Amino acid sequence: MIKVGIVGATGYTGVELLRLLAKHPRVKIELITSRAEQGNAIDTLFPNLRGYIDLEFTVPDVKQLKKCDVVFFATPNGTAMKMVPELIEAGVRVIDLAADFRLKDPLEWQKWYGMEHSCPDILQKAVYGLPEVNREAIKTARLVANPGCYPTAVQLGFLPLIENKLADLTHLVADAKSGVSGAGRGANVGTLMAEMGESFKAYSASGHRHLPEISQGLQIAANDPVSLTFVPHLVPMIRGIHATLYATVLDTSVDLQQLYEKRYQDELFVDVLAAGEHPETRYVRGSNMCRISVFRPQDDKTVVILSVIDNLVKGASGQAIQNMNLMFDLPENTGLDLIAVMP
Amino acid sequence: MIKVGIVGATGYTGVELLRLLAKHPRVKIELITSRAEQGNAIDTLFPNLRGYIDLEFTVPDVKQLKKCDVVFFATPNGTAMKMVPELIEAGVRVIDLAADFRLKDPLEWQKWYGMEHSCPDILQKAVYGLPEVNREAIKTARLVANPGCYPTAVQLGFLPLIENKLADLTHLVADAKSGVSGAGRGANVGTLMAEMGESFKAYSASGHRHLPEISQGLQIAANDPVSLTFVPHLVPMIRGIHATLYATVLDTSVDLQQLYEKRYQDELFVDVLAAGEHPETRYVRGSNMCRISVFRPQDDKTVVILSVIDNLVKGASGQAIQNMNLMFDLPENTGLDLIAVMP
Amino acid sequence: MIKVGIVGATGYTGVELLRLLAKHPRVKIELITSRAEQGNAIDTLFPNLRGYIDLEFTVPDVKQLKKCDVVFFATPNGTAMKMVPELIEAGVRVIDLAADFRLKDPLEWQKWYGMEHSCPDILQKAVYGLPEVNREAIKTARLVANPGCYPTAVQLGFLPLIENKLADLTHLVADAKSGVSGAGRGANVGTLMAEMGESFKAYSASGHRHLPEISQGLQIAANDPVSLTFVPHLVPMIRGIHATLYATVLDTSVDLQQLYEKRYQDELFVDVLAAGEHPETRYVRGSNMCRISVFRPQDDKTVVILSVIDNLVKGASGQAIQNMNLMFDLPENTGLDLIAVMP
Amino acid sequence: MIKVGIVGATGYTGVELLRLLAKHPRVKIELITSRAEQGNAIDTLFPNLRGYIDLEFTVPDVKQLKKCDVVFFATPNGTAMKMVPELIEAGVRVIDLAADFRLKDPLEWQKWYGMEHSCPDILQKAVYGLPEVNREAIKTARLVANPGCYPTAVQLGFLPLIENKLADLTHLVADAKSGVSGAGRGANVGTLMAEMGESFKAYSASGHRHLPEISQGLQIAANDPVSLTFVPHLVPMIRGIHATLYATVLDTSVDLQQLYEKRYQDELFVDVLAAGEHPETRYVRGSNMCRISVFRPQDDKTVVILSVIDNLVKGASGQAIQNMNLMFDLPENTGLDLIAVMP
Repeated sequence: MIKVGIVGATGYTGVELLRLLAKHPRVKIELITSRAEQGNAIDTLFPNLRGYIDLEFTVPDVKQLKKCDVVFFATPNGTAMKMVPELIEAGVRVIDLAADFRLKDPLEWQKWYGMEHSCPDILQKAVYGLPEVNREAIKTARLVANPGCYPTAVQLGFLPLIENKLADLTHLVADAKSGVSGAGRGANVGTLMAEMGESFKAYSASGHRHLPEISQGLQIAANDPVSLTFVPHLVPMIRGIHATLYATVLDTSVDLQQLYEKRYQDELFVDVLAAGEHPETRYVRGSNMCRISVFRPQDDKTVVILSVIDNLVKGASGQAIQNMNLMFDLPENTGLDLIAVMP
Repeated sequence: MIKVGIVGATGYTGVELLRLLAKHPRVKIELITSRAEQGNAIDTLFPNLRGYIDLEFTVPDVKQLKKCDVVFFATPNGTAMKMVPELIEAGVRVIDLAADFRLKDPLEWQKWYGMEHSCPDILQKAVYGLPEVNREAIKTARLVANPGCYPTAVQLGFLPLIENKLADLTHLVADAKSGVSGAGRGANVGTLMAEMGESFKAYSASGHRHLPEISQGLQIAANDPVSLTFVPHLVPMIRGIHATLYATVLDTSVDLQQLYEKRYQDELFVDVLAAGEHPETRYVRGSNMCRISVFRPQDDKTVVILSVIDNLVKGASGQAIQNMNLMFDLPENTGLDLIAVMP
Repeated sequence: MIKVGIVGATGYTGVELLRLLAKHPRVKIELITSRAEQGNAIDTLFPNLRGYIDLEFTVPDVKQLKKCDVVFFATPNGTAMKMVPELIEAGVRVIDLAADFRLKDPLEWQKWYGMEHSCPDILQKAVYGLPEVNREAIKTARLVANPGCYPTAVQLGFLPLIENKLADLTHLVADAKSGVSGAGRGANVGTLMAEMGESFKAYSASGHRHLPEISQGLQIAANDPVSLTFVPHLVPMIRGIHATLYATVLDTSVDLQQLYEKRYQDELFVDVLAAGEHPETRYVRGSNMCRISVFRPQDDKTVVILSVIDNLVKGASGQAIQNMNLMFDLPENTGLDLIAVMP
Repeated sequence: MIKVGIVGATGYTGVELLRLLAKHPRVKIELITSRAEQGNAIDTLFPNLRGYIDLEFTVPDVKQLKKCDVVFFATPNGTAMKMVPELIEAGVRVIDLAADFRLKDPLEWQKWYGMEHSCPDILQKAVYGLPEVNREAIKTARLVANPGCYPTAVQLGFLPLIENKLADLTHLVADAKSGVSGAGRGANVGTLMAEMGESFKAYSASGHRHLPEISQGLQIAANDPVSLTFVPHLVPMIRGIHATLYATVLDTSVDLQQLYEKRYQDELFVDVLAAGEHPETRYVRGSNMCRISVFRPQDDKTVVILSVIDNLVKGASGQAIQNMNLMFDLPENTGLDLIAVMP
C-alpha cells in the first residue's frame, strides 16, 4: 500500500482527493493536516466521508510527512514551496495541486502570484503533470506540478491542432467557463450563492494567472511563441469547466475529426465525441474524463474546439491521482474508473 | 455472472441503474429494451456511459428477457404488470422500479393509478423491497416491488418511532421535498428549467400517489391504522429528497437519538447523524445512503425527524440493486459502495 | 417629498430597499450610511442602481439623520436600538428592518439575540409592522418594527384560521423554506454557492429566532397560548419563502377557502389563489404580494396552508415601504405596484 | 391610449410583454390571442399577472386585430408573415418579435428557417428594430422586425468598433451565453431542469439562425463583408445573455473606453461600465438595459468586449416596447424605466 499524506484538504480539491483516495485500492491515507481544523474529525467537515475516512486533521509536521511515500499539497499557492525541498530531500514524492511549481520562469511566477518563489532551483526539476503530454517524465518525477483546471481543459483542446502546426499561433482565443467550486471554499461575498446564482459573468478579462501556464504549455507543444487571449467566466453551477477554443486553421484540407481521434486514441481519459456532437459538462461530472468536440462552422478557416472536464477531478484531484498512479507504476486508471453522474 | 435485462431505461432511474450496474462486479447486462429508442446506442442517449456500455436499445421481447436471471423494469406505471406474470412463470426474477406491485390492495391501486390492475393475484406475492424492513423476504422473493422515492425517505425516518409505539398515529405529518429528476424525463412544460428554476412549490397537496404506499408501510410497522398528511414539494435542484417529519411523541422520557442509532446500527445504508447535526441532500448525492437526524425542539412533545436520500439511488436504482444483491446472496453493498459526491 | 435616510444598506434588504425607494414617487433619499463602505458610490456596490441613485455611503451621523422625515435601519440586529431613542426624541420616524423591536418581552429578546436590550422602554412603544394586522396603529407609529421574513409568511398563512378559533393551538406546525438571500450578504462558507447549490437542508431545527416572533403574533391573534413547531429550510434559489403550514381544524364544516378569501378581500398585498391551485415562489418574485392556498387533504381534519412571499420584498423592504406609506398617509401601494418577474 | 393586440403570448416573450404592457401608462391591451389557450384566463397561465390583466385568450382573428393601433406577434417563426400583409394594409402597425422579417434576403431566410417566405416584398419594407441603429426609420415604420436576443447583445457590443473601422473584419468571434428561457416554453426533453441544471454546453456550433442576422447588421455598419464565428451556449439560469466578443483591433492607439462611452452617451438603454469593471447578467435582470465593458488584455491587439442583456427584455419584449414608444412618438423609456432586480 502506498502511504499517503495530504497537506491542506479543507477545500474542494481536498475533499475530492479524499473521496477518490478513500476508495483507491492501493492507498493508505496516513495523515491529513490542517492548522485551522486541527483535532477535528475529517467527516465532521465533510459528512459525505462518514464511514470512509476515520481520521482527524493534524497540524502539518514535516517529520510525520516524511514517513509517507507521497504527499499531496491541496494548499493555497505559496504553501507547498516552503515544505517541498525538505520532503524531496527525504525521498518523499510530492504532488502539488496548487500553482507553486507550474511555471518554469520564477520571475513570471512572481509577477502573477505576487510573491517571490522560495525555491527556484526546484522549479526546474518539477514535472508538469499533464499525462497526455508528459507521461514518461511523470513516471520518474520526484515532484509533480499538477496542472490548473483551465489549463487542463484548454491544453487538451488545443494540443492536436498545435502539435501538428495547423493553427495560426498569432491569435488563439480560449473562452473558458467554470463552475463556482473553482473559486474555492474561502468565505467571500463574491462567491455567495445569492451573488453567483442565476447570473453569469466574465472575470479577470485583463489577465488571469492561468494564462502564463497555458501559454507555456502551448509554446512547448508548438515549439514557437503563441499569442493567446484567455477569458475565464463563472457559471452558476458547482462543478465543470467548458472551454470554447477558437483558432484559424492553416490547412483546411486536414480532417480535424480524424486528427483528434487519432491523437487521443490511446488515452484513457480523453474522449473525442462523434462529429457534430457537443459535450456538456455533466457528461464528465464526478469523473476523470475530458470530452472534446471539433467544429469548423460553415467549413471556414476558423476551427472551434469544445473541451469539458470536471474541474475538481481531471482539473485537479483526479489528475493528481492519475499522476500518482504513473509515479508508482500502477495502471493509470486505478481508483479513477468512474462513470460521470448524470443527471 | 448474473445475467441482467432492463426494460425501459430511457428515463432517469434507467440511466442511474446503468451507471451502477456497469460497474457491478457480478453483473453482465444482457439487453436493454426501449420501443422508442430501438436501434440507438445507449451511450448516444446517455454519453456519460461512453466506454462503459456498448449496447443498443432493443424492442422488448419476452423471449429474450426469459434468458436473463433478473429483469429490472424502469418503465412507466402499468407496463411491468403486463409482462411480469410470464417472466416469473419462466423462473426469472423481477425487480419493478415502478409502482405496479407496491400496494397490496388492487382497488386502492386502481384508485391512485387510474387503471385496473392486470394481475392482482401476483400483487400478493410481491415483496415490498425495503431491505431495512423486509430483508429476509426479499432474499427469496421472485418479484420485488421497489419502493418509491418519497416512501423510502419517509418510512426510514418514521420507522423507529412507530415500531416502538412512540408516536401519536392520529396526526403524522410528512413534509417532503424532492429534486426535479423525481418528476421524470418526460417532455413537460411544468418541469422545464425556466419553470422550475429559482422557484419552490408544493404540489399534489390534496393527495399524492405515494401517500397510500407510505401509509401501508407505516401501518404494518405500527400494526395499527395511521393518519398521515403528506405534502410533496419540488426543489430547484436535480437530485435529492429531504423529508421533514413531524409527530407527537407519546413518551418524552425516551432517548430518541439512542433509539434511532440502535435501530440502524447494523444497516449499511442508513446513517444516523450525531445529535444536533442536520443532514443535507448533498451528503448522499450519488450514493445509496439515507442520513437521518432527530430533534425535539424545546424538548417539547413534537419530534422532528430529518431524512435525506438521493431519490435516484436509495430512492430507486441503488435500492433496486441492493435488493438484487439480497436476492442473489451477494454482500448487500456489492457495487453500491459509493461515496457521495460533494460539493 | 418625504426625506429618507437609510442606515446600513450594504446587504440584500438594503439594495432592495434602494431599488424600490429610487422609483417611489414621493420619496427623496437624503443619505445612505455605512461605516465600512464610507465614500464609495452606492452604484459601485450595486450596479443595478447605476443611473438611479447617485449618492455615496456616508458614516452614520445622528445629526444628519435627524434632518430626515423617516429613517430605515437595514442593519444587523442590535444596531438600531443604539440610535433609535435619540431619533424618535427628535421627531424622526423610524422603521427597523432588523429584529431589535419585534419582541415585546426584553428577556425573551435577550434569550434569542444574545445581548441585553438597550432600550426596553421603547420596545413597548414600537408597533409591529404587519399592516394586515396593525394597520391603524402603524399609521400613527413613531417606530415600526418591520416583521421578519418567515414571520410574515407564516402569520399571514395562519391568521384567518386562528383569528376564527378554528385551529387546535396545541400543535401547529410551520415547515418553512427560504431562498439563500435570507441568510444575508455576509462572507460565510456556509452560504457559498458551492455549499448551498444543488442541495437542500433544514437548519436551526432545535429553535430559530423567528419562533418567538411568530408565536407572539399568533398568540395575540388567538388571545391564547399557542404551541408552534417551526422548522426553517434553505432552498437552492436566491429569493422566495414558501411556508407549508399544518393545523388540526376544530370545525370541519367551515368553508376555509371562503374564509380566507373574505379575510383578505380588501388587502392589496395578500392574494388567495383559487381552490386547488398551488402557489409558487416565482409567482411573487420581486413583488410585494403574499399568495396563499388552503387545502384539506382527503377532507380530513388536517388543514394545509401554503403561503409564499418574496423574502426581500413583502418579507422585508417592500413591507417596510408599505409601512412608510401608511405612516405618511399615502396610498398603501405607492411605489409598490410591482408585477412579479416570471419566469 | 394605444390600442394593443398581441398574437401568441403563451411563451416567455409573451408573458414578459404582458408584464411590461400591463403597467405601460399609454397602453390599453385590447386582445390577446392563442389558439391553444382559447377561453382560458391569462392569469391562470401566468399567475404573476393576477390583478393586472383580466382577459382571456381568444382565437386569432384578423378582423379584431385590425381594430388595434399596433399588433405584437409573439409567435413561432413563420406565423406572423401569414397575417402581417393584411394588417399593414389595414393601417395597423406591427411589431414582430419572431424572426419573420429580420433578414433582407428571402433565400437566406429560407435557408436558415426551413420554409419559403410568404411575403418577400414586405420583407424589404420592414425596419430592423434596433433603436441604437435605426431610430429614425423605426419612428415611421409600419412593420418593425424586432431583433433576436443574441443579435441585440452582439451588435451593441461590436458596433462602436465596426462603425469606426477599427476591427479586422476577417475573423470576428462572438462567444455568446444564454439563460434557458431563450430556448422557449415548448415541452422538450432538452430543456428540462434535470437536463439543463448544473451543466453547461455549447449548441449549434456549426451554425445558428442568429448568425445571418448578426452578420447582416454588422455588414451594414461596416459597409463591408464581415466574417463572424458565432457560438451560442446555454447557461443553467433562466434569464440573461452574456456575449464575449473578440476582435483584432487595427489601431491600438485609439482609446476604446472613450470611444464606447461616446457612442452610447445619449442612449437610455446602453450603459458602458467604468474601465476594468465586468458586467454580470444580474446587473440587467428584468430591465431593458444593455451593459458593456471593453478590455484589451495585456494591451495587445485583441480587444475583448463583454455585453449583457436580459434576453426577455432588451433581447425581446422590452425592445419591442421601446420600438412601439418610438413609433407612437412617446418618450423612449415610457413603461421601461425599470431597475434590475438584484440579487
